[in-house]
Amino acid sequence: MMETRLSSASKEVVISGVKQTVFIGERINPTGKKKLAEALKSGDYEKIIRREAREQVAAGADILDVNVGAGGVDEVALLPEVLKMVMDEVDVPLCIDSGNPYAIEAALKVYKGKPLINSVKGEESSLQKVLPLVKEYGAAVIALTLDDNGIPKDVDSRMKVVDKIIERCVKIGIPVEDIIVDCLALSVGVDNNAGLVTLETIKKVNEKYGVNITLGASNISFSLPGREVINNAFLPIAVAAGLTCPIVDVAKVRKSIMATDLILGRDKFAMRYIKYFRQNKDLF
Amino acid sequence: MMETRLSSASKEVVISGVKQTVFIGERINPTGKKKLAEALKSGDYEKIIRREAREQVAAGADILDVNVGAGGVDEVALLPEVLKMVMDEVDVPLCIDSGNPYAIEAALKVYKGKPLINSVKGEESSLQKVLPLVKEYGAAVIALTLDDNGIPKDVDSRMKVVDKIIERCVKIGIPVEDIIVDCLALSVGVDNNAGLVTLETIKKVNEKYGVNITLGASNISFSLPGREVINNAFLPIAVAAGLTCPIVDVAKVRKSIMATDLILGRDKFAMRYIKYFRQNKDLF
Repeated sequence: MMETRLSSASKEVVISGVKQTVFIGERINPTGKKKLAEALKSGDYEKIIRREAREQVAAGADILDVNVGAGGVDEVALLPEVLKMVMDEVDVPLCIDSGNPYAIEAALKVYKGKPLINSVKGEESSLQKVLPLVKEYGAAVIALTLDDNGIPKDVDSRMKVVDKIIERCVKIGIPVEDIIVDCLALSVGVDNNAGLVTLETIKKVNEKYGVNITLGASNISFSLPGREVINNAFLPIAVAAGLTCPIVDVAKVRKSIMATDLILGRDKFAMRYIKYFRQNKDLF
Repeated sequence: MMETRLSSASKEVVISGVKQTVFIGERINPTGKKKLAEALKSGDYEKIIRREAREQVAAGADILDVNVGAGGVDEVALLPEVLKMVMDEVDVPLCIDSGNPYAIEAALKVYKGKPLINSVKGEESSLQKVLPLVKEYGAAVIALTLDDNGIPKDVDSRMKVVDKIIERCVKIGIPVEDIIVDCLALSVGVDNNAGLVTLETIKKVNEKYGVNITLGASNISFSLPGREVINNAFLPIAVAAGLTCPIVDVAKVRKSIMATDLILGRDKFAMRYIKYFRQNKDLF
């Protein structure tokens, strides 16, 4: 298993399949969050951004994803500003999350440390714009298993996208260990087969490349009721299959994933789990 | 994947890896249950046995395990009596659970349908006493991955026990599909490696024989705090690995396992999960 090293100005996080699961906090993202979207549009976002950053780290986030992509927002101007604010508030490494390469570049210019870039896709325009930035700034990058044709429904087509992105990264001189593959979960409420395809892709990427694997895991339950129960069943299975750094609402899933690390032999004498239980009895 | 068919006088249950997980209710067992143990000893057990039977089936148990093995109890006399009472109260197939072959035989004589016998071990005395009963009464049997030397700590030694029991079953004429292997979970609080060994054994048994697999899954969290969280993380991983009929406290784990079946593509349009959610909102 490969190690991906990310850093802030003062802190390093190592992601690896032989270590405990690394949590990437998902909450600084306006998608589906009306209040945050409006705050970003109006410019009155400092309070909410600082609070989300603080609370997620307090809940156990090792890395924070930062996305400001709301309608009517100038991401190129806003992303670096929000990033600076988050860096000022907390000391964990950050994940720069944008579909706009100019916004990514503006963010990279102000970031202190080695960030994760979210994301590159298997399509030419994305590969050509994002990968040079990853290389130039020595960042790590999330490779999405999708391309111009959308998200493939079968495992082999997803693997072809992974093959393509990794080949292009290596060609341009990005170390394989700095690629984190996102195997993309879709809702099992829409497609019965969605969970199996994602899990099988995780296993294959893990076997073939040994790179780290991320997932916006909560998509699995999109449109369904009882979402937390589904997410908390899916994450243990996905982590056992090779998921190493899920993008999650940490407060909601931490105990399940800590239990999973314990079950998978990554928590000697259950010391970490027991300590967490003692300090958070109200969550159990 | 093989199908194991069990029945009561009026109902058949089919266990198979391509179908939804089958729940074996664990609660009629005095181990660790002082009240039930005392009721069984004093003879004043009717109320508690009937209630446990009824409540487990209401909670979703497909099969009930029946064990009366408490200190100071004559199992040979008591097991058939309790079995009759459970058959009278509920109509699901039963699992006759005893370490005493005479008690198993007495129970088989009164059982109506095709029961599951829990269990046979890899040691000679157990093989010689239990397997002829399984054959004679046309029952199915749980094969424990342990022998005279206790529970093996490594996967290969556990597989040797499985090989031995299956070979002996086939020799005596018990169909392979009537063998359900229990891969035995031990506490991850005691042995860091315990979860991995059980999961790896499940995968190997599944690959090699394709038989159904059971597990007294709650042992995984023995001696630890926050047990339900550990059990509810372990079960999804184990079911994804090949566990098809866990022995569980159904009320506590049903929603996680229904979510797991959904994730694994066994619940078309999520109809079963959504129905369960609507009828049990208080559990979510």
